[in-house]
Amino acid sequence: MVKQRLSLVTLGVKDVAVSQAFYESLGFEAEPFDSSDVVFFDMNGVVFGLYGRAALAKDANVSVGDLEDKGDGFHAISVAINLESEAEVDATLAEVAAKGGTITKPAEKVFWSGYSGYFADPDGHLWEVAHNPFWSFDEDGRVMLPSKQATN
Amino acid sequence: MVKQRLSLVTLGVKDVAVSQAFYESLGFEAEPFDSSDVVFFDMNGVVFGLYGRAALAKDANVSVGDLEDKGDGFHAISVAINLESEAEVDATLAEVAAKGGTITKPAEKVFWSGYSGYFADPDGHLWEVAHNPFWSFDEDGRVMLPSKQATN
Repeated sequence: MVKQRLSLVTLGVKDVAVSQAFYESLGFEAEPFDSSDVVFFDMNGVVFGLYGRAALAKDANVSVGDLEDKGDGFHAISVAINLESEAEVDATLAEVAAKGGTITKPAEKVFWSGYSGYFADPDGHLWEVAHNPFWSFDEDGRVMLPSKQATN
Repeated sequence: MVKQRLSLVTLGVKDVAVSQAFYESLGFEAEPFDSSDVVFFDMNGVVFGLYGRAALAKDANVSVGDLEDKGDGFHAISVAINLESEAEVDATLAEVAAKGGTITKPAEKVFWSGYSGYFADPDGHLWEVAHNPFWSFDEDGRVMLPSKQATN
């Protein structure tokens, strides 16, 4: 049985310093760490990391592939920041745009009855910023899915 | 100020049913959800989702690109399952391999003094399975980074 955990999300980036500066400009606080090769952000239970694309590929023992082509392309993955209101989604995307993020999709009402927009970071990694009226948060801001809400 | 959150990790997959079956075969329990288009797994504070590649690209309003080429390639991202011991890492990778996961890197001692291996899921999404002697876990299995350990 594999433990049902997701402990760390690592983005392979072209320039760790550039990406760290971008996320810090959004207000994220990096963990103190004596290395310029990797940066960790404590996402309150899950860790968000930045690491060089080539180094990440090497670490996983996979081919780097045509990184330049993939740099601005679709990585078949996204991460999301879920918020308590549509207004907070709009304000967040506005700040991201002001800080140099590329808005790939302005927030709008979506088919699952929520409100969602997307931005791309300096490497084209996709972040959704969304409000889901069916999801709530615990006191630490962690998403509480319906099944967990029912038990609390 | 953007809230420092990572609420959801969504993998764009070729076949949601195939990917759901793979993760469930590892022991993950999917959330009850009346849709075959998307599957959610409660990762104890962060949500892990499976969604069609084309649907995810459309949702983010980005070009799908050459998905076939990227299907087995490097997505410049990885997620990780951190565990309490090297033995647990080996046992986990062995189970993943037995369930059809592709081991891209057998576990080994790594430069950051930990023990780490990687597997790829049916779409080539990379998962690291690791033991980090410097990280501990809270009672819910959430990673506690050194700075958080110091405050607990």
